[in-house]
Amino acid sequence: MTPTIADIEAARTVIAGQVMRTPMLPAPSLSAITGAQVFVKYENLQVTSSFKERGALVKLASLGEAERARGVIAMSAGNHAQAVALHAGRLGIPATIVMPVTTPFVKVAATRSFGARVVLDGETLAEAQARAEAIQVAEGLVWVHPYDDPHVMAGQGTIACEMLEEVPDLDMLVIPVGGGGLIGGNAVAARAMKPGITIVGVEAALYPSMWNALKGGDRPVGGPTLAEGIAVKIVGRSTLPVVRELVSDIVLVSESELERAVNLYLTRLKTIAEGAGAAGLAAMLAEPDRFRGRTVGLILCGGNIDPRILASIMVRELEREERIVSFRITIPDRPGLLGTVATLLGRLGANILEVEHRRLFLDTPAKGTKLDVTVETRDAEHAREIEAGLAAEGLPAVRIETGGGEVM
Amino acid sequence: MTPTIADIEAARTVIAGQVMRTPMLPAPSLSAITGAQVFVKYENLQVTSSFKERGALVKLASLGEAERARGVIAMSAGNHAQAVALHAGRLGIPATIVMPVTTPFVKVAATRSFGARVVLDGETLAEAQARAEAIQVAEGLVWVHPYDDPHVMAGQGTIACEMLEEVPDLDMLVIPVGGGGLIGGNAVAARAMKPGITIVGVEAALYPSMWNALKGGDRPVGGPTLAEGIAVKIVGRSTLPVVRELVSDIVLVSESELERAVNLYLTRLKTIAEGAGAAGLAAMLAEPDRFRGRTVGLILCGGNIDPRILASIMVRELEREERIVSFRITIPDRPGLLGTVATLLGRLGANILEVEHRRLFLDTPAKGTKLDVTVETRDAEHAREIEAGLAAEGLPAVRIETGGGEVM
Repeated sequence: MTPTIADIEAARTVIAGQVMRTPMLPAPSLSAITGAQVFVKYENLQVTSSFKERGALVKLASLGEAERARGVIAMSAGNHAQAVALHAGRLGIPATIVMPVTTPFVKVAATRSFGARVVLDGETLAEAQARAEAIQVAEGLVWVHPYDDPHVMAGQGTIACEMLEEVPDLDMLVIPVGGGGLIGGNAVAARAMKPGITIVGVEAALYPSMWNALKGGDRPVGGPTLAEGIAVKIVGRSTLPVVRELVSDIVLVSESELERAVNLYLTRLKTIAEGAGAAGLAAMLAEPDRFRGRTVGLILCGGNIDPRILASIMVRELEREERIVSFRITIPDRPGLLGTVATLLGRLGANILEVEHRRLFLDTPAKGTKLDVTVETRDAEHAREIEAGLAAEGLPAVRIETGGGEVM
Repeated sequence: MTPTIADIEAARTVIAGQVMRTPMLPAPSLSAITGAQVFVKYENLQVTSSFKERGALVKLASLGEAERARGVIAMSAGNHAQAVALHAGRLGIPATIVMPVTTPFVKVAATRSFGARVVLDGETLAEAQARAEAIQVAEGLVWVHPYDDPHVMAGQGTIACEMLEEVPDLDMLVIPVGGGGLIGGNAVAARAMKPGITIVGVEAALYPSMWNALKGGDRPVGGPTLAEGIAVKIVGRSTLPVVRELVSDIVLVSESELERAVNLYLTRLKTIAEGAGAAGLAAMLAEPDRFRGRTVGLILCGGNIDPRILASIMVRELEREERIVSFRITIPDRPGLLGTVATLLGRLGANILEVEHRRLFLDTPAKGTKLDVTVETRDAEHAREIEAGLAAEGLPAVRIETGGGEVM
């Protein structure tokens, strides 16, 4: 069940010209932050914005004539769905993708656009899975598993080959872990090419499934995570032994580390990482000592993140840096005072983003009024200058949380 | 004053190993939208997130011992500042960068982090320019112009060499035009390597400086643009003759085309383009007939965009696609009705983002209340279902513009 380096070399031939050889680039700004030499493999630049195409194509290409004619089926609300749909479509293999009814329309539309039949069924992934298994049996289709399959693992393992060819000095790979297909294939490839290399896995702390499996732990598994691409409850039967043998350790990362990593990719490397895609960088933020001084390869494995969530992450980071600040100012309810405040803020260099003028609320003194103002500042120092400037004019301001970034 | 292909070949040697050879990748999703074969050169992946490093380094490397010892000076609030600072720092050349006092702190900090002396002076670019010229004279520094310099132009021209080496089939390059350094250098390089290639320039419609210069036009120049990187009022003396000779035409793009192009890079290619960086794609959206069927190379020349503006573009696009919709519902002011509406919206699959419950405003009937609700939908069709579902329960809803995306 475990692919060998020969299988992975064969997989490279299969995908050549059909799956993008993505860029592998030095990331000096991440090196400066982490104290390591950091290189990034941009798997988010694949056509379907994730590495999943590699394994899907290798699996599809392994099928015989009869299997191809019958067609394939997969269950996925995410990257695997589009990967199977794209390459089955290219190869003329009929593909059925089962997705939960709650799958965002853009993902359904993208999957359909590659020519797949999409069946929307089930409120949850488990319900969709049950439906997919029923269809598979009824129609005699070939199952394309997202990770628990040696062909899929061999396909994913082609990434490490490309990374080590371009940067032979790598002495550490940091790889997100969901079911274990990505890390399994790449651990086999990397250790075959460079036996001394260290392989570190990363899981969201909310989904420590592989950590539990390796260490016999019983940490709770579940909850809403930014890294839904690696939010897997049961690791693969074929991936677990490979990970046990070849992976040094699993780092667990918090939601705020994932969020910070997504934001660093965005602001420093000008590239979009989904939560799971940023997990490797999150691990470097979570446990810096483990990586300092090493030559580290990160697999930025996917870029499919909801634009609304991305916008929210960006605004929250600006709030954290005090480049967006909200003040509540209590002022006498006198004509012209809003104008006075606005003029003063302008003079202080604060760019007003939002004003809420509350004169009718019960918690305001009868002759007073509350003004909530959200301003853009140059930096935290500037925010303090603005606060002091308001106070100096007899307009004491209290910092408030608007939570605006939470939803928009 | 015009660089030759030999100058550009020499520039390639100068920058080799010091400036990133950025990826040049096919963009099938953009090809599907435009009907052309589109390839993208990711200059936004440079360390300072723009192509400016190429020209800056070639200029710096051209200086003699005495000039290096005296040091260099540049005026820029943007990409050129960081490019000069980074490479001067690397080469041990003292660099002074003059920036207007209004320059965002992150840009000042980034420039300082490369070891440059930053002088903040002047409310406008013109005032900063005057100050920079005064310092240059007083201290005998070497001026590093952002575009009007043959060394700078030769450096920028190295991009087209890399593009054509990797994709010799290109028959069209679409290149943003500010002062003309990027298009000038690349027009020389591309036409020398492939005489039949078509070079098209792109300017923001608000800044048609090169268009005016080439056509003797007098379109107004000025105003706030998303593409501040190419918002130039006076084109270069050394760039104009090159553009006149080698560039087929200039396409002018609107602000909404620029915004749509930034959003396409973000959502389809998972990469961050600043307004000027997306100008080439904006031109393909503006005049699709000009490009259909051609093999087109786009230079994604920079990725330095304010995260707040990027977040706003993303939310506005979701509003345009009706994936974020705001309704105003007038309801009788009766206890429990907010709960009724919220429950109904939940049943209709609408994810509530924001609620404003206005019971005290004068334009509301005495016994009524207005509820403004912003919800997330799956798509436009779903938005219409939600509207119909509210009406069916006796809660007629009117679509409103919240403008929330404008500021956050």
